[in-house]
Amino acid sequence: MPAQLPIATTQKSQFLDITPVVQEYISEAKIVDGLAVVFVPHTTAGITINEHADPDVRADILTHLEKIVPEKGTYRHAEGNSPAHIKASLMGSSVTVIISGGRLQLGTWQGIYFCEFDGPRHRNIWIRILAK
Amino acid sequence: MPAQLPIATTQKSQFLDITPVVQEYISEAKIVDGLAVVFVPHTTAGITINEHADPDVRADILTHLEKIVPEKGTYRHAEGNSPAHIKASLMGSSVTVIISGGRLQLGTWQGIYFCEFDGPRHRNIWIRILAK
Amino acid sequence: MPAQLPIATTQKSQFLDITPVVQEYISEAKIVDGLAVVFVPHTTAGITINEHADPDVRADILTHLEKIVPEKGTYRHAEGNSPAHIKASLMGSSVTVIISGGRLQLGTWQGIYFCEFDGPRHRNIWIRILAK
Repeated sequence: MPAQLPIATTQKSQFLDITPVVQEYISEAKIVDGLAVVFVPHTTAGITINEHADPDVRADILTHLEKIVPEKGTYRHAEGNSPAHIKASLMGSSVTVIISGGRLQLGTWQGIYFCEFDGPRHRNIWIRILAK
Repeated sequence: MPAQLPIATTQKSQFLDITPVVQEYISEAKIVDGLAVVFVPHTTAGITINEHADPDVRADILTHLEKIVPEKGTYRHAEGNSPAHIKASLMGSSVTVIISGGRLQLGTWQGIYFCEFDGPRHRNIWIRILAK
Repeated sequence: MPAQLPIATTQKSQFLDITPVVQEYISEAKIVDGLAVVFVPHTTAGITINEHADPDVRADILTHLEKIVPEKGTYRHAEGNSPAHIKASLMGSSVTVIISGGRLQLGTWQGIYFCEFDGPRHRNIWIRILAK
């Protein structure tokens, strides 16, 4: 099995900063140079990299995704969470990040965000590291 | 050349479940642990991971992409298939999936979907596996 | 540090073809078979793969992203560039491309595009190659 890290979301829609837990896993794996793939094994949640400084940025992304994919609409899926599935595919199911010197290589303003669209729930992220 | 798997779509817009052909390729490659990258070498088709249980989910994603990127609009590209190009970039050109124990690691409800936006056509998917 | 390639954008919104600089880096690295990850360390720019033949395709994608995420809206982020952040997450922060025979493997019509959404600026792309 891949490494599985449990996380818990607290809102219906939420961008959760998972950068620290991913960095901690990489530090413990003692991989110096390579790639980290962070994979979301869910279909109503996604993952993205965006600004970690001002929380208003995440709020604006979530609000705008809601405008693009409104909760109320003519969806066929009986469970009623089609908007969450659509948003998940718009954000994507994994991110790939370079590891150098034992650390995730992110831009100054970047953080890795788990994108909850059908919470709150107990979720998992899976990580696989490949050494260079 | 990377491994090339031919597929055929049957609709103008269609989500085609390619999970079995990707799994079969990985089983034959006898890679136990690593990463699989599934790449779409086309510009009017994409790839995504989403629910495989209820086909209404794929129908809702396709229908909603059509609302976000309508066929009729003021597009400049003379071939008339700009909406397909736009949808392709919204979904993305590749997915990366963890391999453990010789098997694709997907969540319970996840499948890998080739996203046809300008079919029906004969298409290809390319696969590259890296062992851990 | 990962390999860093500086680029300069010249427009507010622009798709810049970076295929040649990525190919040149791979040629110099003398990696025959593997994967290349091209990563954007910015939060108001993304990266995508789409058609390189007719520039109208890129123009249509940019114009339509502007329709989906208009500059004028009720955004909270005080810097005023929330639309650029939202578009960055819609396109994604990295692409993964197969390398075979020392060359990027792209479809006939595909090019790799740096997606500037808040330019013009001096930017960087980061590249990591893993050999098969």
